[in-house]
Amino acid sequence: MNVIPEIYDVLLKVREQSPVVHHLTNWVTIYDCAQIVKTLGASPVMAHAIEEVADMTAIASALVLNIGTLTTEMIEAMKLAAKAANTKGIPVVLDACGAGATPLRDQKVLELLEQTQIDILKGNASEIARIAGQNVRTKGVDARETGTDPGVFAQELAQARKLTVVVTGREDVVADINGVSRVRNGHALMEHVVGTGCMATSVIGTFSAVEPDCRKAAVAALVCYEIAAEMAAQQTAGPAAFKTGLFDCLYMLDRQTVERMIEADI
Amino acid sequence: MNVIPEIYDVLLKVREQSPVVHHLTNWVTIYDCAQIVKTLGASPVMAHAIEEVADMTAIASALVLNIGTLTTEMIEAMKLAAKAANTKGIPVVLDACGAGATPLRDQKVLELLEQTQIDILKGNASEIARIAGQNVRTKGVDARETGTDPGVFAQELAQARKLTVVVTGREDVVADINGVSRVRNGHALMEHVVGTGCMATSVIGTFSAVEPDCRKAAVAALVCYEIAAEMAAQQTAGPAAFKTGLFDCLYMLDRQTVERMIEADI
Amino acid sequence: MNVIPEIYDVLLKVREQSPVVHHLTNWVTIYDCAQIVKTLGASPVMAHAIEEVADMTAIASALVLNIGTLTTEMIEAMKLAAKAANTKGIPVVLDACGAGATPLRDQKVLELLEQTQIDILKGNASEIARIAGQNVRTKGVDARETGTDPGVFAQELAQARKLTVVVTGREDVVADINGVSRVRNGHALMEHVVGTGCMATSVIGTFSAVEPDCRKAAVAALVCYEIAAEMAAQQTAGPAAFKTGLFDCLYMLDRQTVERMIEADI
Repeated sequence: MNVIPEIYDVLLKVREQSPVVHHLTNWVTIYDCAQIVKTLGASPVMAHAIEEVADMTAIASALVLNIGTLTTEMIEAMKLAAKAANTKGIPVVLDACGAGATPLRDQKVLELLEQTQIDILKGNASEIARIAGQNVRTKGVDARETGTDPGVFAQELAQARKLTVVVTGREDVVADINGVSRVRNGHALMEHVVGTGCMATSVIGTFSAVEPDCRKAAVAALVCYEIAAEMAAQQTAGPAAFKTGLFDCLYMLDRQTVERMIEADI
Repeated sequence: MNVIPEIYDVLLKVREQSPVVHHLTNWVTIYDCAQIVKTLGASPVMAHAIEEVADMTAIASALVLNIGTLTTEMIEAMKLAAKAANTKGIPVVLDACGAGATPLRDQKVLELLEQTQIDILKGNASEIARIAGQNVRTKGVDARETGTDPGVFAQELAQARKLTVVVTGREDVVADINGVSRVRNGHALMEHVVGTGCMATSVIGTFSAVEPDCRKAAVAALVCYEIAAEMAAQQTAGPAAFKTGLFDCLYMLDRQTVERMIEADI
Repeated sequence: MNVIPEIYDVLLKVREQSPVVHHLTNWVTIYDCAQIVKTLGASPVMAHAIEEVADMTAIASALVLNIGTLTTEMIEAMKLAAKAANTKGIPVVLDACGAGATPLRDQKVLELLEQTQIDILKGNASEIARIAGQNVRTKGVDARETGTDPGVFAQELAQARKLTVVVTGREDVVADINGVSRVRNGHALMEHVVGTGCMATSVIGTFSAVEPDCRKAAVAALVCYEIAAEMAAQQTAGPAAFKTGLFDCLYMLDRQTVERMIEADI
């Protein structure tokens, strides 16, 4: 992706095609995940019953998994949904929320990676470092820096697992077997709002529903979402009003703004 | 219901009597369902444990069921709650969220309709068409038009099942064995906010707690709720700010506004 | 706690230490519980899988339990988490949401009180009166007055159970074996917003993570939270906009405002 106009083109495709994006996600940010997808002009569906997850994935154009409030049963449902997505050939995005915080999370992320085809793996630096085999400990589910350049272990992991790896932070890293992109949009207020990471994953999933190049989809998603965050932060200093603004700025985002505000090495 | 003043009278009764409205609903919009009930001046309670649902229904004045994130266990809890509501003689409202999207949803809606007495069945056109036996496929959980006038299959279904049927859309249809009412209030921004359909069902449930005529309760509920949406849309073009405004406009809704803005064939 | 400056000092410690606060809470207000903790500058984590609750508690500085949408499985997970917290020596706060509404709730609150060490028990007057053995019936989960001064049965319960008891209402009561404090901050709009009670509990849990005196932690938490509510109510009359303001006013709360607006007998 060498030209900036293509970023906004992906958003445009989302708005035109209105893909169904199936989620098995956590109970904390489930509303926000659904609403951010709808804000993009797409159609979220959240369904986790073991008897219907495969059927629901069959009418979707992307699948988003998020282990934020995982249970054993939910992980089994995620595997069924992911296998249905793999069969259908639609992208599967996994948010490794809280990986490194407990052995259960580490184990279940590995099971998902080994028993299904995950196309995009997303987390903050400590979560992805953990999955990449680095010796770190996640403090709850909050973003933490690890000291190392995430680009290094992200690309190693991308090559080892043959998938796209997204590490969010002050600077986001998107790595696949071919290289690393970096996105520097976003705003510090995002760290004061629960769910901004989960929503990023849902935006990435939605973009991947219309753009087959996963790295390009993830970069375009992060740029658009984080520019909306910057715009929202211009209007308020409070995290709750900021969140309202984030949705509304994303809803109204136009090409001119994206191309003026983008800060990325694509 | 031949006179417009009666619409607002139902809202007034809700505010005066503050009925307890028990929900077994979905995990996406559960907060909004509770908050819209509280915004009306009533008292929401959300409880789904199989051991207590009947006890909780016993202290309620209406029961709202919503299958948005159904599981087999949740449906069994819904049946217990509905039977307790039937025994007590309080109204049961069912939102057939996502009916037609998967076989599980179709089957479970039919089980609820056959094993318990549902008083008001609510959905969008494709959901209700499906339950009425029409050959349609629901795309996720989002509102879709079917091409046919929903008034036709809604009334057939109302007569076949002996209940009140609500089909929401640009024009809402409320049908019972005696006839069809239509409500044309509302605003296009509602389609960009996750949960506006679920909240409509909760408002209908709350109104039915104080008004025994289910069709009248549903019409009054939709008129008040959708006028609040119109007022909110006058203040903003962003879906998130609109949602905040929807709650606050409903909270402050007065008789004069309802009687000036109502657009309905009652 | 004899001097007013200490109130704000507790909030300052929260902001400086950013403690991890583990929740097993309800599905209605789970987002708001997390967000209010983050708004304070602390780090919320919500995890309920039976396999990981003890591990997650082990990285936390306080544990918050809320039975709003309890199930038998969730209560078992709460017991495991509470035992891990007891072993580690971190405070456990229990919101007895809806106690008195059903036999299940009464039974499960008693099980938690008897099988684990709860440090702070919080509820509205009818919930706490019920647990204290008074003959009352809770109407759903909404705050109700009981006619008796809650200070009386709160202190009896505190002495009988050797814990801190918080009763919220127009005037909040915080009782331990040494005495009773009263907080008169807050605003009537809080009663029109679902989750203000749950969030109060999360704020208390967060303050108790940095302040070992539970009564002092609870008083400081209620004063700060309810002053933020008063500030928010000065800006709007609508419950949804008020809620946004409550978060943002708490986020920006400063010493001068706390010391000017505090209304409490400490």
